[in-house]
Amino acid sequence: MTTQSIEARLLALEDRQAIYQLICGYGYSVDGCNTASVGNCYVDDGVYAVGDLPGFIGREAIEAITRDPGHLGLVAAGCAHLSSLPFVVIEGDRAVATCHTMVPMHGEKGFFIGRLSASRIEAARQPDGSWKIVHRQNYMLNGNPEGPALLARLNEGPAVSAEVGAA
Amino acid sequence: MTTQSIEARLLALEDRQAIYQLICGYGYSVDGCNTASVGNCYVDDGVYAVGDLPGFIGREAIEAITRDPGHLGLVAAGCAHLSSLPFVVIEGDRAVATCHTMVPMHGEKGFFIGRLSASRIEAARQPDGSWKIVHRQNYMLNGNPEGPALLARLNEGPAVSAEVGAA
Amino acid sequence: MTTQSIEARLLALEDRQAIYQLICGYGYSVDGCNTASVGNCYVDDGVYAVGDLPGFIGREAIEAITRDPGHLGLVAAGCAHLSSLPFVVIEGDRAVATCHTMVPMHGEKGFFIGRLSASRIEAARQPDGSWKIVHRQNYMLNGNPEGPALLARLNEGPAVSAEVGAA
Repeated sequence: MTTQSIEARLLALEDRQAIYQLICGYGYSVDGCNTASVGNCYVDDGVYAVGDLPGFIGREAIEAITRDPGHLGLVAAGCAHLSSLPFVVIEGDRAVATCHTMVPMHGEKGFFIGRLSASRIEAARQPDGSWKIVHRQNYMLNGNPEGPALLARLNEGPAVSAEVGAA
Repeated sequence: MTTQSIEARLLALEDRQAIYQLICGYGYSVDGCNTASVGNCYVDDGVYAVGDLPGFIGREAIEAITRDPGHLGLVAAGCAHLSSLPFVVIEGDRAVATCHTMVPMHGEKGFFIGRLSASRIEAARQPDGSWKIVHRQNYMLNGNPEGPALLARLNEGPAVSAEVGAA
Repeated sequence: MTTQSIEARLLALEDRQAIYQLICGYGYSVDGCNTASVGNCYVDDGVYAVGDLPGFIGREAIEAITRDPGHLGLVAAGCAHLSSLPFVVIEGDRAVATCHTMVPMHGEKGFFIGRLSASRIEAARQPDGSWKIVHRQNYMLNGNPEGPALLARLNEGPAVSAEVGAA
């Protein structure tokens, strides 16, 4: 590690902090129905694949979550899209972040956990130096074996398929 | 980013890590009823505004949470003041951190989520280089529209009102 | 802080990021039943003390969690071993991270919080520069006063007892 240049070490630290901002910022943006901020998390042709629901393909479809009646109903009742501290593997201009996503919601009997998912998020460095999400895969942790299988890959770097959606 | 000096880049990285320590450290301190550690998170005239409860004005009032019978009852029964990974905007000696705060508690039927809030935390760099909270605003995510509205402002920098309570 | 050398400042930043990776990475590894990745979080004679359950002594015992029928049952039903953002105190080649650990699980009536614990994790820098866990102490936050007492010590550095298990 100490054989790396100062520049390389600074960049590695900045990259991980930027990816932390990206992952947690998405959740606050979507709970706040901040359309521009949600869209800003993804590349133009980014994909948000949810596993048990139809996926969202392209930034416009992802931005539209903030205007979706189902989402607005959750927000009006009270909810939080919580992302846990991500485990991040960075390779050059590509990164993969593994985390849990939990959505506590408010109902008649108080708060309850509405969704609990495993998430694997592929991100790419953009020409302006920012990081954006290229592909996000969620799987509900409700007995579907794909969730644990996704988490087991935490040390694997970005996939070749991540070339799709590159800046 | 790379046009900044090494000093500026190191400081930006250190600032965000320091604010992470501040935000999560408050929760562990209050769950541990560590009065000095709770007080150390805030400036002397810091404010903790809770939304649905009377606020806490000044470090002494905030420290007194650790001796409050209601709080001591929660701690004795079992609880955790969890803060999610914050989204942090830093401008010079000021910063704003946006996060969720969730308080799982233990009761007769096991664990339940007692509180779930949106938090916007204004912090200021102190003369000794540390960061402390100037103003924290929580809103319960239980249907109150102020919670989502607060989260929607995640990209907004520190308010002019943050001048109150400056070091 | 600014009187430290650039090398010391970079190392301090890298150390905290590495400990973040270690703490959250353990949770994803154990939920994914990734035996090697779980084992890689601990030194050979590392200890995982759980408080209300028999502890796990040595890397092999900790790795065996990923093959334990009880654990496999939780994973098959759906669960997440969530660690909150840790508060980290670093002293040279030793560090202590304080965090909450929460385990939401999936059952017949949906998701519920199965476990909620306070965690104090002693880690040590290894000869290859990585950080590994030497000793982890969890206490359930269910009325046991040891949980809050552990959290109250968040500002305390590594214990002398951490010498056990040193690299």
